[in-house]
Amino acid sequence: MLLINPLNKRNIMNSNMEKPYVVGIDIGGTNTVFGIVDARGTIIASGSIKTGAYEQADDYVNEVCKNLLPLIIANGGADKIKGIGIGAPNGNYYSGTIEFAPNLPWKGVIPLAAMFEERLGIPCALTNDANAAGIGEMTYGAARGMKDFIMITLGTGVGSGIVINGQMVYGHDGFAGELGHTIIRRENGRLCGCGRHGCLETYCSATGVARSAREFLTASTEPSLLRSIPAENITSKDVYDAAVQGDKLAQDIFEFTGTILGEALADFIAFSSPEAIVLFGGLAKAGDYIFKPIQKAIDNNVLSIYKGKTKLLASELKDSDAAVLGASALGWELRDMK
Amino acid sequence: MLLINPLNKRNIMNSNMEKPYVVGIDIGGTNTVFGIVDARGTIIASGSIKTGAYEQADDYVNEVCKNLLPLIIANGGADKIKGIGIGAPNGNYYSGTIEFAPNLPWKGVIPLAAMFEERLGIPCALTNDANAAGIGEMTYGAARGMKDFIMITLGTGVGSGIVINGQMVYGHDGFAGELGHTIIRRENGRLCGCGRHGCLETYCSATGVARSAREFLTASTEPSLLRSIPAENITSKDVYDAAVQGDKLAQDIFEFTGTILGEALADFIAFSSPEAIVLFGGLAKAGDYIFKPIQKAIDNNVLSIYKGKTKLLASELKDSDAAVLGASALGWELRDMK
Repeated sequence: MLLINPLNKRNIMNSNMEKPYVVGIDIGGTNTVFGIVDARGTIIASGSIKTGAYEQADDYVNEVCKNLLPLIIANGGADKIKGIGIGAPNGNYYSGTIEFAPNLPWKGVIPLAAMFEERLGIPCALTNDANAAGIGEMTYGAARGMKDFIMITLGTGVGSGIVINGQMVYGHDGFAGELGHTIIRRENGRLCGCGRHGCLETYCSATGVARSAREFLTASTEPSLLRSIPAENITSKDVYDAAVQGDKLAQDIFEFTGTILGEALADFIAFSSPEAIVLFGGLAKAGDYIFKPIQKAIDNNVLSIYKGKTKLLASELKDSDAAVLGASALGWELRDMK
Repeated sequence: MLLINPLNKRNIMNSNMEKPYVVGIDIGGTNTVFGIVDARGTIIASGSIKTGAYEQADDYVNEVCKNLLPLIIANGGADKIKGIGIGAPNGNYYSGTIEFAPNLPWKGVIPLAAMFEERLGIPCALTNDANAAGIGEMTYGAARGMKDFIMITLGTGVGSGIVINGQMVYGHDGFAGELGHTIIRRENGRLCGCGRHGCLETYCSATGVARSAREFLTASTEPSLLRSIPAENITSKDVYDAAVQGDKLAQDIFEFTGTILGEALADFIAFSSPEAIVLFGGLAKAGDYIFKPIQKAIDNNVLSIYKGKTKLLASELKDSDAAVLGASALGWELRDMK
């Protein structure tokens, strides 16, 4: 993996002349999606393979390259590619490795960036999926031109990518920015997959919302459209659909979720005083149902010097494209190989 | 106020040749202390005036200059001074102003950096006291050579200075890093001077420790040396003195304080994954009484990927010198005036 320039829009412009494209590879637990992206954030070619089908990381990387290379060749060859960015769970930017990723088939430390670089001869960088989303938002989305913002991804878990002084925050070890695992409820907090209690993720992820739904349905006998769904099958999408239909209990679940998230965001603001917080993922699509309680909770909880200063924004990247775009954005930062 | 280079040790070395000194001015509610400092962090001349004696900021700045100028002249003149750094409560680095500082005599927004620059003809920068402490620690103290660390000042309040990628974090508005005002107890949290409840500062400042002492003494009939002091007069120093003499209740107060601080630090680590957290101020002098419970609480509360990675350090700056040294360190970052 090669060293990287500080994030800087001008790099994109300069590099456009000769190398107009980047490649983004998003490695998910189920699918790996990859695409070739231009400087405006248009995906000009893309493909995907099943991540879980390859027990050996070598076979997996070979298969990605087998599918990706024809796309590269069809668009002018490797010479037209400025760099490859990879977004992966447990990705470490400094080492270009994924480390002990529980949802991927390969155990231990896998030097994915180096493996792709070696096969394709194109500079390659890797980071975790939430950081990639943050870089994507800064390059193509709602955080264009911002130097200080926090990206919060609300998916199965809660992820975060923090940008300060125009730079992604990786910390001394490459693992900074796990805001989904800050403790928002110290007493009687929900058990988290990480083994601790009260993590933000247990309340404000899609699974956290489903968990809240089951709790709310058990705690009262209030009528709700959600009662027609077997409790263990309820998803955050079901809660949204019910809320849109005017279901009070479903709306209360969003109120509860948004309030908790807003309380947490108020503390994050005291850390880095960002210009904006950008929300991405299914929950962020719930519009006012989630944004209003979040904003209210921020206003009620933030220290007065920060009040009204930090914008709360929804991601401007299309869901289907965001993962590849985010990963690809890392590619603009890469220097040419020597 | 002039623009400033990213923090960079080489600046010090380069500038030493012609301009071997900086000036630090620490503006406290009671005293203003100033000094001339060399590149090794030795204060070669210093003085002080009473901050509160000057109702007009103009008179105040004139008086500081009147006292400071003879020291500058005695040490080679303004040409030998690389820059002036000012540490002040509610100081805004971007604007060089102090803004609505409740403990200073001047109301509204005061352009202190520009006022000193105008009178002395030396580039001048200003930041809040906790940020100054952080820069001081990075330049002369326990965080030398570190690019990612968090400074926590445990005084009358709890302040913080956050360094990421070798740069002080100021946020989009200059007010980032108020970790003393993150909420550590959401239910039944103590009322804070900021008007909210449960701020870290209400538990882990010197006044927070005194408050805990009063609570502990009321909550039990356990014998304690502290019972010989009128409750309203107890200070954190009294608690320390009692703890050193083996007083169990006093030791429990430190255990309580350290546990809460460690819980908070575990969350801060999830934000920026710092190489170290440096503690400064009276409480940090309580040694193992406070460091052991802090470390234990960090270990018990931090997400597993961070476990054992972040060092917990005591400041290496002498209490009496730290404020001036911290402020002065900002002076090395300044560019010459044109």
